[in-house]
Amino acid sequence: MKQSHLFTKTRREAPKDEVSKNAQLLIRAGYIHKEMAGVYDFLPLGLRTFEKVLNVIREEMNKIGGVELHLSALQNPETWAKTDRWSDENVDAWFKTKLKNGAELGLGFTHEEPLTALMTEQISSYKDLPVYAYQFQSKFRNEERAKSGLMRTREFVMKDLYSFSKDEAEHTKFYEQSSDAYGRVFERVGLGDTTFKTFASGGSFSKYSHEFQTVCDAGEDTIYIDDERKLALNKEVYDDPQVYEATGLVKENLREAKSVEVGNIFTLGTRFSEALGLSYKNEAGESVPVFMGSYGIGPARLMAVVAELLSDDKGLVWPESIAPFRVHLVELPSDNEEVSKEAAELYRELTEAGIEVLWDDREARAGEKFADSDLFGIPLRVVVSEKTLAAGKFECVERASGHTTHKSISELIGHLTA
Amino acid sequence: MKQSHLFTKTRREAPKDEVSKNAQLLIRAGYIHKEMAGVYDFLPLGLRTFEKVLNVIREEMNKIGGVELHLSALQNPETWAKTDRWSDENVDAWFKTKLKNGAELGLGFTHEEPLTALMTEQISSYKDLPVYAYQFQSKFRNEERAKSGLMRTREFVMKDLYSFSKDEAEHTKFYEQSSDAYGRVFERVGLGDTTFKTFASGGSFSKYSHEFQTVCDAGEDTIYIDDERKLALNKEVYDDPQVYEATGLVKENLREAKSVEVGNIFTLGTRFSEALGLSYKNEAGESVPVFMGSYGIGPARLMAVVAELLSDDKGLVWPESIAPFRVHLVELPSDNEEVSKEAAELYRELTEAGIEVLWDDREARAGEKFADSDLFGIPLRVVVSEKTLAAGKFECVERASGHTTHKSISELIGHLTA
Repeated sequence: MKQSHLFTKTRREAPKDEVSKNAQLLIRAGYIHKEMAGVYDFLPLGLRTFEKVLNVIREEMNKIGGVELHLSALQNPETWAKTDRWSDENVDAWFKTKLKNGAELGLGFTHEEPLTALMTEQISSYKDLPVYAYQFQSKFRNEERAKSGLMRTREFVMKDLYSFSKDEAEHTKFYEQSSDAYGRVFERVGLGDTTFKTFASGGSFSKYSHEFQTVCDAGEDTIYIDDERKLALNKEVYDDPQVYEATGLVKENLREAKSVEVGNIFTLGTRFSEALGLSYKNEAGESVPVFMGSYGIGPARLMAVVAELLSDDKGLVWPESIAPFRVHLVELPSDNEEVSKEAAELYRELTEAGIEVLWDDREARAGEKFADSDLFGIPLRVVVSEKTLAAGKFECVERASGHTTHKSISELIGHLTA
Repeated sequence: MKQSHLFTKTRREAPKDEVSKNAQLLIRAGYIHKEMAGVYDFLPLGLRTFEKVLNVIREEMNKIGGVELHLSALQNPETWAKTDRWSDENVDAWFKTKLKNGAELGLGFTHEEPLTALMTEQISSYKDLPVYAYQFQSKFRNEERAKSGLMRTREFVMKDLYSFSKDEAEHTKFYEQSSDAYGRVFERVGLGDTTFKTFASGGSFSKYSHEFQTVCDAGEDTIYIDDERKLALNKEVYDDPQVYEATGLVKENLREAKSVEVGNIFTLGTRFSEALGLSYKNEAGESVPVFMGSYGIGPARLMAVVAELLSDDKGLVWPESIAPFRVHLVELPSDNEEVSKEAAELYRELTEAGIEVLWDDREARAGEKFADSDLFGIPLRVVVSEKTLAAGKFECVERASGHTTHKSISELIGHLTA
């Protein structure tokens, strides 16, 4: 993409009302726009990174047998009344609205109820199980106070997967697979070393659930980490003696850290299937409630945590897996027409080789271009200038390390497609 | 994808409360699920077709210089008050909701206001123009009565593109490009012959706008068609003598038809830019309001119209461009293990050749499998059975024409990748 087609401008200063580092950087770099407190728009660069995060998650969900669908945001109160989650006394996250005839509707803050109700039409026999259905879908949550930039918002896309199993044994097997898949997601987006599988309380149907917590000073949570075992406990269970028995963790060996919850997996058991009448006939012909689990990741929060943790004082630093482009081709101003021609040729060849390139073809000073490039955080900057033209090699600078090499077109393509 | 992983079941009968043919077929085939009146979920097959429609539109929008972004659904009343479109007296489509502190928010039914407001931060000089920004984003419209299945719903994804130009001349050039791009979209999804560019009234800033209307008995609109010129008029302008002068159409030559609006393009002029303060400095240093246009397509409505028009008494018939899969590999029941092995091998080879295949690997009767296959509407059915095994060639049946051939694996792959 030519940068001259990108309508967004970078900003030296973040808006004064934006206190979180992730939103400051993402706004300054033109990735997002703040619509109002807790509500953000994705601008072209931000949407590209966001979509890459979705694709990483999608690939990992498909690998464990997930099937993608998409449910509505508008919610029917009747369905939620069956699980006692319609009233504002029981659930404080609802945004509610009304039809013209006065009938109330909700905006989904999660989707256990409608999906369980839907599955009553699809699941009737043990032969229909298990089912692993997931979506990337906009949730609405009426947060009292929205803060922390993209980390806690009132409208956000969530990857929510729901598992429907014959029994607890089948469920547990998938729960572990899902846990491993989450580990791979965080690894692939650059948070592998800082993200800990964390024991949390389990609610009514299992002793523990699990959160995935990324250590981050801007986080709202506190966890207690065993670095060697790469496990943690959250505050809910930290003082519960049983958790140490169950996990073998030793309280004295844990270190405390601020963290952000980037994912969670829950055993739901039969709470929703019983309330909504989702049962199946087993091999003996008996009617049995389906055993469920739910598994969430907020892709925008993940993007925010990466922005928060992997950035430096010059701007964003994306891992290749979720960078909006792989190469930032920076053409420096010159009176020599050959510089532009060379940049165009390089853009063409890289693009043809399947490499995503943002080409800074604007008329602007070199200093401005480099500052924007640093702020954008694209993994590899390739500079085309009179100097590189004379040398026959382009200057290639890795954004993360600053490591600089000089490569010909063929060396560069060889390097990027290796 | 193996059909045994697809949790949806086909239905012989549509739900009784569903009167529209498109929704009846799509529900029976397991493409969509009705959540409530005017609100549908996309099940895996439906989501695949829907995503293909999005991609066709995305490609055509990118070709004319569109840049993709994504705005929020939650809307700030302050922005809409500036154009007098917040009050329910002026706009009857709003769904409104409230923050915990009692402040009202809206759910966007369109996005002229927030995008124009956003652009005031990005556009300041003639050098920043033109800008063509588009999104695929969920709109919410509080329709009095939702009917016609997916054709008119209360929650739906819209492709909305907004153009920001220096002046009317620059705008008009893009308006025509956009019109051509729309023509290509409808052509690619199989509605080229039945869709007519239709003159409609233009509102305050231009004499005419244009709708794209597809002739369809289930449509809510009436248009008047000149088949030779492939143009039409809608009801608003049919009795306006000026439209005949402007277009050269002759009233007596027009035929009346029921139709569905599948797209529209509007000249907005400076109505929104003036109200929201979006201006730029021209080359003479003068401040000038940006000249705008808007361009909408509802991808789910498009999918519904294709379902309505291209189906037959056996079920859906998708064009290749938007079919959920290209090949439906139907393995017939057999005691001979070689049949399953052959199906698995064919699935592997087709998938490796980049062809999307749904493999009916279920234990079910041949009749049931064929009926499901017809209902699904995947363009090519390839049958693997004892008979085809003996013949060394697979039976290949085109869904649309019923045309049948017999091909070896290599002939089939050659045919599909030609």
